Amino acid sequence: MLKFYFGKNTCSLATHIALKEVGANFELVELDMRAGEQCGSEYLKINPKGRVPTLVTRKGVLTETPAILMYIAQSFPDARLAPVEDAYLLAQIQAFNSYLCSTVHVAHAHGMRGARWADDPCAIANLKQKAPQVIGDCFDLIERFMFVGPWVHGEHYTISDPYFFTLGRWLKSDGVDPARFPKLIAHRTRMYERPAVSVALLNEDRLEEELAPM
Amino acid sequence: MLKFYFGKNTCSLATHIALKEVGANFELVELDMRAGEQCGSEYLKINPKGRVPTLVTRKGVLTETPAILMYIAQSFPDARLAPVEDAYLLAQIQAFNSYLCSTVHVAHAHGMRGARWADDPCAIANLKQKAPQVIGDCFDLIERFMFVGPWVHGEHYTISDPYFFTLGRWLKSDGVDPARFPKLIAHRTRMYERPAVSVALLNEDRLEEELAPM
Repeated sequence: MLKFYFGKNTCSLATHIALKEVGANFELVELDMRAGEQCGSEYLKINPKGRVPTLVTRKGVLTETPAILMYIAQSFPDARLAPVEDAYLLAQIQAFNSYLCSTVHVAHAHGMRGARWADDPCAIANLKQKAPQVIGDCFDLIERFMFVGPWVHGEHYTISDPYFFTLGRWLKSDGVDPARFPKLIAHRTRMYERPAVSVALLNEDRLEEELAPM
Repeated sequence: MLKFYFGKNTCSLATHIALKEVGANFELVELDMRAGEQCGSEYLKINPKGRVPTLVTRKGVLTETPAILMYIAQSFPDARLAPVEDAYLLAQIQAFNSYLCSTVHVAHAHGMRGARWADDPCAIANLKQKAPQVIGDCFDLIERFMFVGPWVHGEHYTISDPYFFTLGRWLKSDGVDPARFPKLIAHRTRMYERPAVSVALLNEDRLEEELAPM
């Protein structure tokens, strides 16, 4: 059985939704990110990067959202989450997800975790200050040039949809008004209608209650 | 025929090498990055992100190194640059390349292009100052936990190899001593022995001469 390590309000939600979309049988393990559990010695033995998501398969450990999403799509072909036989269409999906991980998620991280790249408190504050502009520019580019609709890549729901949905949920707390992006808002509404999305969100909230201190 | 847009001393070298490895027939178009040609109106019509690499195929435009590398591997199966039928092994390759684009390349960019994320000159200077440490930590993690050898993923040369080689070439100018990473050094030596690598490097240097002002 798959074992899936996630952190609440992180990009691991994309993997969580995808696992639910394909009906995978998996064990869900929450890491308490605020307590730094992702950097604890036990977890670092599994994923030395100290990040989420991690998916433990019977063959070994997988990390990095674009790779895990692709693995899920390829391992559960009946769910048709990616046209794995079509090199061009698959590369379009991979390109979108690569942009999300290397540019959009990174832009977000500068608001939250500037200490990854700067030591000076004033520099960290400046990164945080500029982050909404950088994040807004990313979603503007997606809205204008990448998003096809009704799903990210057009008529077919793919592994780009839960990933885009997940990062888009951070806009408001990142200081960017989501209303600037009507396609994103419509996509979000469509996502909430999918059972896999409801279940994944419910799973993560329910766990919060279970793990809350008495 | 494929049309490949590249910039000298950028991550596009990885794609260039991969195209040579598979024996693809392609037109090579250099963008003068110092002159900002990647942000010119003509190129932005092709790639609105204003980045390299871009690969124009008969079906459409592809961007983002991990996606383009995967496209090349899948489109030229005889070259065996990735086990495209094996979901787990393919995800391992994608995970490595995703780490390179979202963490390693990003760490490098903080030394070179801090203005992407900061406005304050002091903050940009602080990003530059810390970059060698962040970059060094990334390559240390690769050296200790990811690199299998003799190639990145073991006995088989894959699309991770030209990408790793490309980013590793920046270490010295990034202020990180490559000698800290003996596996990387051995890998680099092995890469230089491959005809595809020599030809790609020669192509980029030869073009420099051709494009130099009289």
